[in-house]
Amino acid sequence: MDNFVYENPTRIHFGSGQIAALAEAIPTGARVLMLYGGGSIKSNGVYDQVAAALAGFDWEAFGGIEPNPRYDTLMRAVERVRAGGFDYLLAVGGGSVIDGSKFVAAAACYAGDDPWAILAEQAPVREALPLGCVLTLPATGSETNINAVVTRAERKLAFYSPLVRPRFAILDPATTLSLAPRQIANGVVDAFVHVIEQYLTYPADARVQDRFAEGLLLTLIETGPKALDDPNDLTLRADIMWAASLALNGLIGCGVPQDWATHRIGHELTAHFGIDHGRSLTIVLPALMQARRAAKRDKLLQYAERVFGIDQGEPEARIDQAIAQTRAFFQRMGVETSLADAGLDATAIDTLVAGLEDNHLLPLGERGDIGSAEVRAILEGALR
Amino acid sequence: MDNFVYENPTRIHFGSGQIAALAEAIPTGARVLMLYGGGSIKSNGVYDQVAAALAGFDWEAFGGIEPNPRYDTLMRAVERVRAGGFDYLLAVGGGSVIDGSKFVAAAACYAGDDPWAILAEQAPVREALPLGCVLTLPATGSETNINAVVTRAERKLAFYSPLVRPRFAILDPATTLSLAPRQIANGVVDAFVHVIEQYLTYPADARVQDRFAEGLLLTLIETGPKALDDPNDLTLRADIMWAASLALNGLIGCGVPQDWATHRIGHELTAHFGIDHGRSLTIVLPALMQARRAAKRDKLLQYAERVFGIDQGEPEARIDQAIAQTRAFFQRMGVETSLADAGLDATAIDTLVAGLEDNHLLPLGERGDIGSAEVRAILEGALR
Repeated sequence: MDNFVYENPTRIHFGSGQIAALAEAIPTGARVLMLYGGGSIKSNGVYDQVAAALAGFDWEAFGGIEPNPRYDTLMRAVERVRAGGFDYLLAVGGGSVIDGSKFVAAAACYAGDDPWAILAEQAPVREALPLGCVLTLPATGSETNINAVVTRAERKLAFYSPLVRPRFAILDPATTLSLAPRQIANGVVDAFVHVIEQYLTYPADARVQDRFAEGLLLTLIETGPKALDDPNDLTLRADIMWAASLALNGLIGCGVPQDWATHRIGHELTAHFGIDHGRSLTIVLPALMQARRAAKRDKLLQYAERVFGIDQGEPEARIDQAIAQTRAFFQRMGVETSLADAGLDATAIDTLVAGLEDNHLLPLGERGDIGSAEVRAILEGALR
Repeated sequence: MDNFVYENPTRIHFGSGQIAALAEAIPTGARVLMLYGGGSIKSNGVYDQVAAALAGFDWEAFGGIEPNPRYDTLMRAVERVRAGGFDYLLAVGGGSVIDGSKFVAAAACYAGDDPWAILAEQAPVREALPLGCVLTLPATGSETNINAVVTRAERKLAFYSPLVRPRFAILDPATTLSLAPRQIANGVVDAFVHVIEQYLTYPADARVQDRFAEGLLLTLIETGPKALDDPNDLTLRADIMWAASLALNGLIGCGVPQDWATHRIGHELTAHFGIDHGRSLTIVLPALMQARRAAKRDKLLQYAERVFGIDQGEPEARIDQAIAQTRAFFQRMGVETSLADAGLDATAIDTLVAGLEDNHLLPLGERGDIGSAEVRAILEGALR
């Protein structure tokens, strides 16, 4: 494996009732702005639990952060932070709320003219407000990592900084029991693809990282469909929540090659056609596996054997089966696996390729050999 | 799974040449006492690499910390710290040096009359010197955790405190290439047993923790024998080093029942008869599996299937095979698997049981149902 530096100091409070830990986790005397999304936390009791835990603090709430959080909304939150003199942020929601809050944390302290530079020019983040979070939708791993994705117009852009890593993360699986099946499905497949992107490259003598990645995939394949069938089983939600967090907390990506092409292409699908983030990934991944099967051959065979138990037959047939099983898992989760499933046809491909080109995101892939032509080939394979 | 709080903020620098990172990892201006063991770091080049990296610091070295570090030696280091005004400790060595340095870090700041109370009475650690480490022997996980074990006369006692967790850990697998086969074997089996003790209890709906534990066991079973056969393969050493660290960094133990009976009984074997720590565990574990097979039945069957691929035959026969395979793995690593292998007979059993009783360490086990009679039964099963 390659040399690496790993640290993840986020303190995790996991389990039912852990929202009460907020009272201890936030420093005494902090002036807290609580950021949240579309209001579901008001109907499922999470808002009330948070409010009870914050009773000893001077705090206000800022709602309305969208899925794929929008720059303009977040800049309104930045104004609110500045006007109100808030010095601690608390994100309550899923990856979008946490990602958005990370941007608010950095933008509120940005010394340059326009915080847009943090996203558009990767301007360095030199300071950020401290941030904690209460996770209510397992999917992105944002609750303990340093990454965030923000949308402006049709551009979906990322930034990262250790300064925006949450100081603590409260993961109460009971908060996920009120999620719609669509949201659980999106979260499970998002986490699944995060693992794949750190795993399905080429062998790198990283046996532990491989075994951990496979363990997360096996867990998601086991628990995801069961969670759709039995939406009241808290043990399944707990395993999904923990798996999704570990899928992108930095650990399985230590010292190994990575291929984030599926996410990059998926972001264009979301930005231009409004496809749910998780579903943008399941449309791209099976076609990417197919188009890149030569470059990923050894790991595809390992994936076939260790994740799906496919160890008989010719190697190419085993790879075919592994791709088919991947697609079948996604279908079992009720998500789209082709552009046609999402109501798109070949006319979308130019838009998607142009989006990647315009944002200077090419080439992609673990060897940097996925350019415009290769993206086009992947998307043609994803047509149906 | 049970509720849990997890954090592990240690910054890990992993890979060849990472000792140079010391220069950045220790705060500028720190006055550093470097603690080490028996001198092997002087012959394998590690001492010189550390000295080069510390060139910008005011530092001195304190050598002679033994395997199973002794209280009297550590108290001499405490005196040195106080007399020299050192404000940062750097442990360079294996788990014994790091454990010993943790005690020095806490004892040097201890406000009571006698730091022995930290071990003998679990007196709370309210302050400790900051500590960093360079790991040279993968085994204990001490490089990122909060635990330490210290020996005084025939007592081997543990303490733990988040204040003694290393701020950073440098893991350069190249430093392990000069280890004797006996040391590598001890480290691999120690890490293996750490995993087992957090895994082989009863099912707790902790699917990720189970998969990660199984992944570490599979990695150690694959790499341990190969590392003995090919002592120059750096990729094997890297995987072993990373597996051993993750085996006891807190992660796989989150929210699950644990059974540290093997370690507790093993400590008595070391304290009274001088058995290497790793080998004390391999003497106890197969007999413990056998004696506790009813209580651990479900997890033994899962272990048989997922770690050894044993999924045919009657359940009891599968458990027999799993225990036999465990013993065979230990034997392949060249370590003892019975009291007879270590030159001990039934006369040792009274001493060992009395040691546990005298240190008030009973009952043991994930359900607290291993008392004197059960320990005796385990040890009788370990006779040969």
